[in-house]
Amino acid sequence: MSSVVIALLLFMGNAHAEDGYALWMRYVPVEPALAATYRAQLSDIVAPDATPTQRAARAELERGLAGLLGTAPPMHAEATQQYAVVLGTPASSPLLAPLHSEIASLGPEGYLLKRVQRDGRSVLVVAGQRDIGVLYGVFHLLRLLQTGASLDALDVHESPRVHLRVLDHWDNLDGHVERGYAGRSLWDWQSLPEWKDPRYTDYARANASLGINGTVLNNVNASAWSLAPAYLDKAAALAEVFRPYGIRLYLSARFSAPIELGGLKTADPLDPGVQRWWRDKVNEIYARIPDFGGFLVKANSEGQPGPQDYGRSHADGANLLADALAPHGGVVMWRAFVYAHDVPADRATQAFTEFAGLDGAFRPNVIVQVKNGPIDFQPREPFHGLFGAMPRTPLMMEFQLTKEYLGFNTHLVYLGPLFEEVLRSDTHARGKGSTVAKLVDGSLEGHTLTGMAGVANIGNDRTWTGSHFDQANWYAFGRLAWNPHQSARDIAADWAAMTFSPDPTVVQPIVAMMMASREAAVNYMTPLGLHHLMARGHHYGPGPWVDGGPRPDWTSVYYHRADRNGIGFDRNASGSNAVAQYAPELAAQYGDLTKVPEPLLLWFHHVPWNHRMASGRTLWDELVTRYSLGVKQVQEMQRQWSTLTDPPEVERGSAPLPSPIDPQRSAQITAFLRIQRREAQWWRDASIAYFQSINDLPLPAGEAPPPHPLAYYKSLQFPSAPGDGR
Amino acid sequence: MSSVVIALLLFMGNAHAEDGYALWMRYVPVEPALAATYRAQLSDIVAPDATPTQRAARAELERGLAGLLGTAPPMHAEATQQYAVVLGTPASSPLLAPLHSEIASLGPEGYLLKRVQRDGRSVLVVAGQRDIGVLYGVFHLLRLLQTGASLDALDVHESPRVHLRVLDHWDNLDGHVERGYAGRSLWDWQSLPEWKDPRYTDYARANASLGINGTVLNNVNASAWSLAPAYLDKAAALAEVFRPYGIRLYLSARFSAPIELGGLKTADPLDPGVQRWWRDKVNEIYARIPDFGGFLVKANSEGQPGPQDYGRSHADGANLLADALAPHGGVVMWRAFVYAHDVPADRATQAFTEFAGLDGAFRPNVIVQVKNGPIDFQPREPFHGLFGAMPRTPLMMEFQLTKEYLGFNTHLVYLGPLFEEVLRSDTHARGKGSTVAKLVDGSLEGHTLTGMAGVANIGNDRTWTGSHFDQANWYAFGRLAWNPHQSARDIAADWAAMTFSPDPTVVQPIVAMMMASREAAVNYMTPLGLHHLMARGHHYGPGPWVDGGPRPDWTSVYYHRADRNGIGFDRNASGSNAVAQYAPELAAQYGDLTKVPEPLLLWFHHVPWNHRMASGRTLWDELVTRYSLGVKQVQEMQRQWSTLTDPPEVERGSAPLPSPIDPQRSAQITAFLRIQRREAQWWRDASIAYFQSINDLPLPAGEAPPPHPLAYYKSLQFPSAPGDGR
Repeated sequence: MSSVVIALLLFMGNAHAEDGYALWMRYVPVEPALAATYRAQLSDIVAPDATPTQRAARAELERGLAGLLGTAPPMHAEATQQYAVVLGTPASSPLLAPLHSEIASLGPEGYLLKRVQRDGRSVLVVAGQRDIGVLYGVFHLLRLLQTGASLDALDVHESPRVHLRVLDHWDNLDGHVERGYAGRSLWDWQSLPEWKDPRYTDYARANASLGINGTVLNNVNASAWSLAPAYLDKAAALAEVFRPYGIRLYLSARFSAPIELGGLKTADPLDPGVQRWWRDKVNEIYARIPDFGGFLVKANSEGQPGPQDYGRSHADGANLLADALAPHGGVVMWRAFVYAHDVPADRATQAFTEFAGLDGAFRPNVIVQVKNGPIDFQPREPFHGLFGAMPRTPLMMEFQLTKEYLGFNTHLVYLGPLFEEVLRSDTHARGKGSTVAKLVDGSLEGHTLTGMAGVANIGNDRTWTGSHFDQANWYAFGRLAWNPHQSARDIAADWAAMTFSPDPTVVQPIVAMMMASREAAVNYMTPLGLHHLMARGHHYGPGPWVDGGPRPDWTSVYYHRADRNGIGFDRNASGSNAVAQYAPELAAQYGDLTKVPEPLLLWFHHVPWNHRMASGRTLWDELVTRYSLGVKQVQEMQRQWSTLTDPPEVERGSAPLPSPIDPQRSAQITAFLRIQRREAQWWRDASIAYFQSINDLPLPAGEAPPPHPLAYYKSLQFPSAPGDGR
Repeated sequence: MSSVVIALLLFMGNAHAEDGYALWMRYVPVEPALAATYRAQLSDIVAPDATPTQRAARAELERGLAGLLGTAPPMHAEATQQYAVVLGTPASSPLLAPLHSEIASLGPEGYLLKRVQRDGRSVLVVAGQRDIGVLYGVFHLLRLLQTGASLDALDVHESPRVHLRVLDHWDNLDGHVERGYAGRSLWDWQSLPEWKDPRYTDYARANASLGINGTVLNNVNASAWSLAPAYLDKAAALAEVFRPYGIRLYLSARFSAPIELGGLKTADPLDPGVQRWWRDKVNEIYARIPDFGGFLVKANSEGQPGPQDYGRSHADGANLLADALAPHGGVVMWRAFVYAHDVPADRATQAFTEFAGLDGAFRPNVIVQVKNGPIDFQPREPFHGLFGAMPRTPLMMEFQLTKEYLGFNTHLVYLGPLFEEVLRSDTHARGKGSTVAKLVDGSLEGHTLTGMAGVANIGNDRTWTGSHFDQANWYAFGRLAWNPHQSARDIAADWAAMTFSPDPTVVQPIVAMMMASREAAVNYMTPLGLHHLMARGHHYGPGPWVDGGPRPDWTSVYYHRADRNGIGFDRNASGSNAVAQYAPELAAQYGDLTKVPEPLLLWFHHVPWNHRMASGRTLWDELVTRYSLGVKQVQEMQRQWSTLTDPPEVERGSAPLPSPIDPQRSAQITAFLRIQRREAQWWRDASIAYFQSINDLPLPAGEAPPPHPLAYYKSLQFPSAPGDGR
């Protein structure tokens, strides 16, 4: 087949199937004039093809250019007369030798995108110290083309600020994805290792395009079976697919595996038999997967086994595994999301209480993985107090991409602003400017082991993430893991351009929708610092009335503490004193009713209903106003979307412009916004009905009363809501 | 966009993505000379577009011809000068008035594909009495083109022989598919009713292409929630998608729903409150879905509630629902797959025992749905004794397309020969020639309510069925439901031509593989009438040693009864006397060790290991030989497949021909055959190791001993095997 026909096929294939499968790697034709410029600048390419990663880089560039420019330029393994682009490493390409030290300064994963003069011509260099950097550079170059950027004076030096950039899959071996809203697990364990679905390769491509370099295949609520030989064979087959794309494979380890799998009587980390079992198991893994990344562990949390079962500490547990992994270069990602069997006075304080004192007790190849906030991936939380409180311990950020508490896959909620808000939070750990981002990238405390994890929102749905807009959350996570100092808005703009169209009249309204969406969700779900008021178990829809059950901290009333007089969780010295887990400057701010930011008001304070807010309204009136505002914000998103899908007439009587959005994605997004609108209203109405039943206060003027009595909202049941734990 | 571009896009889209999604409706270009002939014969088309079904027929023809011929001919709603094809009903097209009575004779779903003379020209007529017949006719015409048939002297008169042609989905509301090996449920309940995934339409197209006219959305192990208003709204949205394609929607009804959903104290079918509840519920359904088909019920079976809980009969239960449905034209499909809490002497006899005596006790809108064999979808069973034993009751065939007992989705096992074997079985109910097919199509007893159900093998996997070859089982079921007298081989040939290529050098080896595949599975799993020896619960892999547990008839030893002296289940008068549930001629044959067909030998007889077989070998030697033969048959399938994917050199030193199979499907099929080969060997080795541990006999000469001791095979565990019930 000629390369023109291949190009046409790729183009046609992409043009035909706007079903979301291509993600942000659609590579559809750029505007003709620009394409001509790009074609001239990318006319002849020198790219080595000796290693799998080199072939991946070359193939991606070929695929991208064929789609974007209509035809892929000639590719050569060796220098030619007229080359305009050169890919490679100083080792793989003699043409890059002069840039040797400049490239070396970028580190093992960095890359250079630079226009240089060679033999009197301008040549574009895409170079890294290793092959993987070159692949990253290719994706960067393709992004520039996809967003219509100029290639005239390129001088890009990029290195990741964070070492471990990892997706955590909460996938069970039976294919169920805990808190998954995008179908089943991508991993078809039954047909592995023989069948390597091409989708595994596309998964690796998508991650590599963002610089994600690790994946934890299985749920933190882990089955010991994941470590059984048959599953290791299957995992090794996946590792083989991922390796050329720079992605290392990790597994969640069940702490009691020595008992369940090894037949030992104990999993005590200080027991020599247990230590031997883990050493042997780790050796067994590395024999199959020489670049295995290590273990992620959830221990002594929500019923999982752990070192405390034997009177040992989290450090003892983590170090057990770390010692087994160390000879191979593997790491332990030990989760700090823990809470004891005994319900504490304030669950928000527990991880801090258990971990802060262990600072310095962990092996060098342990990184403690901390959720962004002290409760559990709520629409809004203050940053987790452990950030800044364990200077001698590398801390890894854990974000949740799958929207367990944010409307599942059907609500449009762009998480970029949430991630950004957390990363830019100032811990004051080393004075002003000690942002969470500087703790995550290691710069504040000089750690070299650094990491950011995203709980994946990926399944076997054709869109990967269960909706078109949820792809943006995967995308934003990857970009921020590479560099946590980036802007969520800029990332949204890149994503929108690549996913829909670089036309500013498309990008602008989409970015506006995205940037407003998270605050909308906060408003219609849990405004003003409220949290964890979702329905029990599956977390689908409102449940502010949830009480009873096995533990108080699994109820809503535990968190909102509303009574006839007021609402909110007192986390001051007069209450749980959670504020003391922050730096003194912050504790003073959070603890002062007059200084606490209103978005965190009810997180830190129990406040009378008639408390006067900045708006001049009472707290109750403000709360109701916020709920209604959330609904209006969704309506505004619908309006913005409709301007794209049903463009207005340009002048009176003229034919409307064609929609810049393809009909298939347009239809799904429109339908999902309708679901979000309906459910936002449900959140507002149910929440108001409930809180009004507590405080008996009238609604502010102009606010419609809930259309149903509270009993109706409480009666709704959803026994088959997706993603529930099993 | 011009229609040429559209055609190109469709073609390119298809050519690009051979991922199985297009099923047998790929519509790839036919060979150029043939395309020219077809184009001339199909140059101008008159097709009405006033109703949704008319538009579906027209759109399918447009899509098909654009793909097959490179361009879709002009379509007109009214007659033109030069038309060459006319679609429609006598009501929708005046051109068809002369054929009025010929068309009427074909019934409401029939169609005519006929070349007639009009104004001195030859015109191709695609006509039915109703729109749906026209759609069926369009699919028939497209099949002729896809298989390269001549359109010169067409004179096709088709009417379905069976009234209800239904897929039974065993899909739970949480997306899990019981015994599903193709991903999650297609039905995304969470985003319904707002979002109607285009895949629902493609599902409807695929079914309509076969004449399937009903679908039961939810598992027979039903949740009462399926009947709750919110789910009925969602079901109604699906019904709306399916309606233009002639597909009626059915629901599995949980017998105790009046208690669980209605808050009643009883579900007793004779209770007036219960009767009222079902009447109201049925009215509520028809208000949303005016063409609702009715209920499928599994009652008093495997723990499901039913009328026997109140001392009532299956007829009482079925009639309760039938009376509620009758005013709307709905039916009850009442399953005969029952077995009591008390383990009977022979489970194979139980459905007969419970149902035969109820003949004549059911309402006219009840059809009793009987599995093809008396146990449970085994690789081979004799036909179910109820066929022929209930002359006054319509009996519906239930086949299982999902391969619960036949290697899941990774084994290539074409079920056409199994279906054909059952349908051609002679019940002798009204003398010789009283085939099961004649009972199913109603002709033997003059029933007009007739049906065939297939337990669907469909999920959200991109291939729909979890593998490319499993699509053939959906296909064959649909074709046989339309006409149960067709040949499984002919159907396989059509499917292979449409799915891969009409080239005889492709069709021939693929059909050979398919036709041999079922016997291969019988051989490597359960030869000579053995049955139900799969592992416990998930049924993945061999488990002839399974014993103990809650009930003897959930073990393997119950079924094979092997001891030191012999093997097999004595179902003669000396044993369970199951033979008495067949007509006397058959009972005499099955019951006689010298006359019973060897493939059913151990189903009906307990036979000494040294029994002399037709081959001259002892039973034990024959058994071992059969197991090994099964493995060899899979190896032969691998060899046949490799001739397609790696064609031999035509002459010494010449370049090999390009493979006629696209690389993506080729790779998956090759990998799956490798899995099948490995698992066939596992079945052989484990079975031989086990039975040898019982009889202590030597292997026949040349037979390799199992590579592991029996303890190894028994130790294998698969806690996450797919499809297990939950």
